[in-house]
Amino acid sequence: MGKLAIIGLGLIGTSMGLAIRRTSPDLELSGFDRIQESGEYARQIGAVDILGLSAADAVKDAGTVVVATPIINMRKVFEEIGPALKRGCLVTDTASTKVDVLRWADELLPQGVTFVGGHPMAGKEQTGPGSAEAGLFEGRPYVVVPSTRSHPAAVDAVFSLAQEIGSEPFFLDAAEHDAYAAGISHTPLVASIALFNIARNSNAWPELARMSGPAFRDLTRLASGSTEMAHDILLTNRENVLHWIERYTEELRRIGDLIEKNEAADLYRLLAEAQIERENFLINPPKREEVVKDVDTSMSLVDLMVGSRWKERSDEMTKALEERVRARSREERLRRRE
Amino acid sequence: MGKLAIIGLGLIGTSMGLAIRRTSPDLELSGFDRIQESGEYARQIGAVDILGLSAADAVKDAGTVVVATPIINMRKVFEEIGPALKRGCLVTDTASTKVDVLRWADELLPQGVTFVGGHPMAGKEQTGPGSAEAGLFEGRPYVVVPSTRSHPAAVDAVFSLAQEIGSEPFFLDAAEHDAYAAGISHTPLVASIALFNIARNSNAWPELARMSGPAFRDLTRLASGSTEMAHDILLTNRENVLHWIERYTEELRRIGDLIEKNEAADLYRLLAEAQIERENFLINPPKREEVVKDVDTSMSLVDLMVGSRWKERSDEMTKALEERVRARSREERLRRRE
Repeated sequence: MGKLAIIGLGLIGTSMGLAIRRTSPDLELSGFDRIQESGEYARQIGAVDILGLSAADAVKDAGTVVVATPIINMRKVFEEIGPALKRGCLVTDTASTKVDVLRWADELLPQGVTFVGGHPMAGKEQTGPGSAEAGLFEGRPYVVVPSTRSHPAAVDAVFSLAQEIGSEPFFLDAAEHDAYAAGISHTPLVASIALFNIARNSNAWPELARMSGPAFRDLTRLASGSTEMAHDILLTNRENVLHWIERYTEELRRIGDLIEKNEAADLYRLLAEAQIERENFLINPPKREEVVKDVDTSMSLVDLMVGSRWKERSDEMTKALEERVRARSREERLRRRE
Repeated sequence: MGKLAIIGLGLIGTSMGLAIRRTSPDLELSGFDRIQESGEYARQIGAVDILGLSAADAVKDAGTVVVATPIINMRKVFEEIGPALKRGCLVTDTASTKVDVLRWADELLPQGVTFVGGHPMAGKEQTGPGSAEAGLFEGRPYVVVPSTRSHPAAVDAVFSLAQEIGSEPFFLDAAEHDAYAAGISHTPLVASIALFNIARNSNAWPELARMSGPAFRDLTRLASGSTEMAHDILLTNRENVLHWIERYTEELRRIGDLIEKNEAADLYRLLAEAQIERENFLINPPKREEVVKDVDTSMSLVDLMVGSRWKERSDEMTKALEERVRARSREERLRRRE
């Protein structure tokens, strides 16, 4: 019977314990969280079998260690667990940024231990082990980030772990990961918080709140996520995030210019193009299976690929699109109908 | 038996027909849409009883006229229907911006006709009469915007109509409406489109799309809304939207500065404050009933106030907050836990 240790029993660590428990009931799961109640809670709901007295205590004899603490704490965790790790042990993490984490692992983990980075792109506003669920990772992307030193078997093991918990793994290197995550995840986070703040900090907030509807709620929801996570992401991916914030403000300025100059036809075209392209994005959801064909796996990724809600949505949108396409060509859609 | 005319049978006009039909089955509903198939569809699903040959034809003998066309088309509709309107007729609209519409109504509608602006703050990405539903307005804000010339009885009638279709009406003047709507609705629209565009127009789009999750989808969903509506909103509320885009880019720059300068404590505080304030916003949803106490109505607005999904969410969040408050005070939450 193998042993797997989870360090950090918040939303992600606890959900991972629940998910692994479901598919690998024979694996012994040990855990540790610096907040004692979090650890206790995770143990009570069965996300781990036993709690270590410390991170180092929890990883003893473990064949696999998943570090799921806030990003900035990982450095210290690597230092602490290093001496206690079993030779040949596989260490992986769940951080939303990867360059710093891989560097820390390289510097601080001992020889004879192999590290493979991981980023399960799943989460929700509610944080902590109380919000954990075994199905959190289902159908979600899981970026596997090998380092130059990662043992191929360890890379395969993390890939399989990601599949086991229902997510859709694919490979990126750390720099690519951080650049793309800044665009698709970290800048949306900043955009959401900034949008909430300008409304909340306005003198007209009572009136604004009264007029608010689902659009404002949806667009600002990332402001309700974990503060620690947001903080750590933004400070461990600074250059990429700043680059994308710059692009974002430029695009806002470009749209603002069209509004200011009353460029009706150009503004219409910009809005119509965004609408058409987002429709295409929803109709043709991203294909993740293409990049994994070299990996030996008995599971059908195609089956996993499209979650049922995505499927429904996609069918619905396809139908809507077909109707629209019948009615009007793309060129017609780029101009206002008279 | 009275007659009500709906000019413009898209998502809003058709939904309004369905909603009015449900509570006032005896009212005769006539309609018109410049797109013949839209009108036909609305009539087939029972949103209107009869279709006029033109807007002017549809409003003949109507006691109430609801103009639900794209905003910029309203000017022409007012010109066209003006001569055909019954003396004493009430005209209202559903536009997302109000200053221009009230000015057009003032200039173009004849004496003896009273105009009261209206803005049902309901909608979805799917547009057109095929997406209409009788329940679209339930629990949603409905801003009633009287002009200086609006007859008090007409103002009450629009207020009652808004209640009848299940929405939560309150009063604002046109300038206030447009200023607030720019902050809570139109700038989020621009923010959502810009966020989609920077990802979509990036060379890394295939990788970005592959990594995208619910956050990106939710935050960019307004890019899928009606192009005409977005276009007309932005060009009829230019100054307010430009003002709020400016505030938004300033806030993005403020956050960017904290990231650039690595101001960890200040960044943490900004993120924690946003989280706490958004939590408060969800726990204490905006109270719309306070402003309507002067209006004579037999309906309990308090009953209407909180839709059941809001209620559930609010209960859930209250519980989550209570737990957190027990654990940590606000001051503690503004600093990172060691």
